[in-house]
Amino acid sequence: MKFTCSREELVHAIQIVQKAVSSKSNISISPVFGGIFIRATEGSIELQATNIEINISASLDATVEEAGVAVLSARFFSEIVRKMPGDVITITTNNKENNAILKAGNSSCTLVTLNADDFPTFKPLAGINTFVVKDVVFKDLIKKTVFACAQDDTRPIFSSVCLEFGSDTVSMAATNTHRLAFKKDKADPVASPITMLVPGKMLKEVSTILSDDLPTDITISYERNRICLSFDRVFLISRLVEGQFPDYKRVIPRTFNTNVLVDTKELADAVSRVSLIARESDYNVIKFDFEDDKIHIYSSNPDVGASDEYVNCSIEGDPIYVAINSNYVSDILKNIYTEKTEISLNQTLTPIRIRPEGSEDYIYIVTPVRR
Amino acid sequence: MKFTCSREELVHAIQIVQKAVSSKSNISISPVFGGIFIRATEGSIELQATNIEINISASLDATVEEAGVAVLSARFFSEIVRKMPGDVITITTNNKENNAILKAGNSSCTLVTLNADDFPTFKPLAGINTFVVKDVVFKDLIKKTVFACAQDDTRPIFSSVCLEFGSDTVSMAATNTHRLAFKKDKADPVASPITMLVPGKMLKEVSTILSDDLPTDITISYERNRICLSFDRVFLISRLVEGQFPDYKRVIPRTFNTNVLVDTKELADAVSRVSLIARESDYNVIKFDFEDDKIHIYSSNPDVGASDEYVNCSIEGDPIYVAINSNYVSDILKNIYTEKTEISLNQTLTPIRIRPEGSEDYIYIVTPVRR
Repeated sequence: MKFTCSREELVHAIQIVQKAVSSKSNISISPVFGGIFIRATEGSIELQATNIEINISASLDATVEEAGVAVLSARFFSEIVRKMPGDVITITTNNKENNAILKAGNSSCTLVTLNADDFPTFKPLAGINTFVVKDVVFKDLIKKTVFACAQDDTRPIFSSVCLEFGSDTVSMAATNTHRLAFKKDKADPVASPITMLVPGKMLKEVSTILSDDLPTDITISYERNRICLSFDRVFLISRLVEGQFPDYKRVIPRTFNTNVLVDTKELADAVSRVSLIARESDYNVIKFDFEDDKIHIYSSNPDVGASDEYVNCSIEGDPIYVAINSNYVSDILKNIYTEKTEISLNQTLTPIRIRPEGSEDYIYIVTPVRR
Repeated sequence: MKFTCSREELVHAIQIVQKAVSSKSNISISPVFGGIFIRATEGSIELQATNIEINISASLDATVEEAGVAVLSARFFSEIVRKMPGDVITITTNNKENNAILKAGNSSCTLVTLNADDFPTFKPLAGINTFVVKDVVFKDLIKKTVFACAQDDTRPIFSSVCLEFGSDTVSMAATNTHRLAFKKDKADPVASPITMLVPGKMLKEVSTILSDDLPTDITISYERNRICLSFDRVFLISRLVEGQFPDYKRVIPRTFNTNVLVDTKELADAVSRVSLIARESDYNVIKFDFEDDKIHIYSSNPDVGASDEYVNCSIEGDPIYVAINSNYVSDILKNIYTEKTEISLNQTLTPIRIRPEGSEDYIYIVTPVRR
């Protein structure tokens, strides 16, 4: 294999696929999982990396003198290409010596190659079933829901996000059973609606790869239990989670006894201060008293102290007193960009709805805890 | 104790003294070591923190209604004051309840106080022997020498910096026995020259506290085995290291067989790339061949690969081949700001001098290792 390409474009492609390079535990199974697979074909090279759960591929233009494949240690490959001088890099494998020579400017480096035959390469899915969604829409859906997933993988349904294409909408929902985030947006009409359970981890990676530079379309295809996302010259493949996502629409209460409208920033700042005390306690709980057009937000811990905040608001309905995990409140407030936030409650232990004022497209449900 | 002060100034003072707050191991001796001591006197408050090795004090203006003292957990005090709203903060202790109430805007927080009687407070040194040095000069001396100290404290002399006031100069020298950094600058004339061994850790903290905003003078006073640095409304006290610093001037060779002049940035970039391979080996060694107006810089490791760099230079004298710890080279190159760097050598295993071209004020000596 021998090719020459833009060093900057290669650095960028390595940064993308590197997100799928395995952690140490997989590398101990086979060193090839710590590598980046390179395939040079006429006019272009493709990089691939996999950690078994997620596979990422990125391609770029190259002048290929000799087609071929190689696997290089991701760690050294990325650091060396980044530190090399000049605009252009040439990479030549020496199969007899099991190494590859990287040359850029006056700089030359030889890297040991790993066995390319052991690398589990992958292809984009055939793409009979495809949907297209704008990157900004997709990124926004991910950001506003994925944080509500369960962090552990013991119950894969709860660490996945329910992605639905409706007749002319796209939505995501995520829940760890104690809270639910649901976000909907407009999308191109589709013939037959579809629901997929996509691992939250996969969506987090996608969202770090999607740049904010140029608007782009993401093509989503699926095939049995796998999903493929492609954009620009990148594609990612992941398994889909099997099973039945909870019927979350039933969890969202239709009526409320108390409706509160409060300045988002004032509430978020107050919650962040009270959290400093709350997080020292085992359950990280903050109390909220909604009464007399004020929210009293407080927490105390005998070893540390106590924090009290009063935030002005407008309250329609009965006064009510609840206790909520402080992270569950601050997570949603980070994602509300309207001036006012609406909090709707029924009873001390029934689900609470938090959303941007008047929003039907973004809804968050959190279950309070005992005070 | 009750006072009101600027929240921003308080945040700044906390940030300064916090650098001396103890690590966990001291806090386990007594929780008071994890605290910040506050003393309110007429018109001002003083904060103090100590980790036994270093004591830091910072003062600021305040409207003091009731003089007194208190100790608050550094961790909570700093985070809460930083997150509170508004320009002004009022702190009131409640001695019966063993707590202090912090109020700013609508925000209120109660923090448990620690026992102020247990806090080892300190005072600035009497200051019979004082020297004055400009902050930019002092910061530059620290930056260019302290990295050459030994990192462990087993031999305190080698983890200290030798600070000397000569008739009209100030200098610092540091060595871990394998390398030496020496930097000298002009200073106000002093009556009697003095040499002090100041712990490197102390100087590192000083240098992070010295802001780049306004030029300021640092007053250095000493008293038996202690040193006090004061500037603005801050002072730091540390013990001095006792013993005899090596006679480093004798280590600096007077003549060299080979003199090399090379572009600093080209050399630094090449060393940084070869280091990627070198640091995978136990001794982190890079080889340098000085020959034919080129430096060949290289390292290899059978498990990873090899890196070769050629940097143009001018060589006067004999060709020479040496091996050096890669960190020992990159550390000095980070501190050379002249276009050209001068490298002077005698034999393969004799000390090498590296310095900015022609400099007599900044000199670095490194001992090569066997190739």
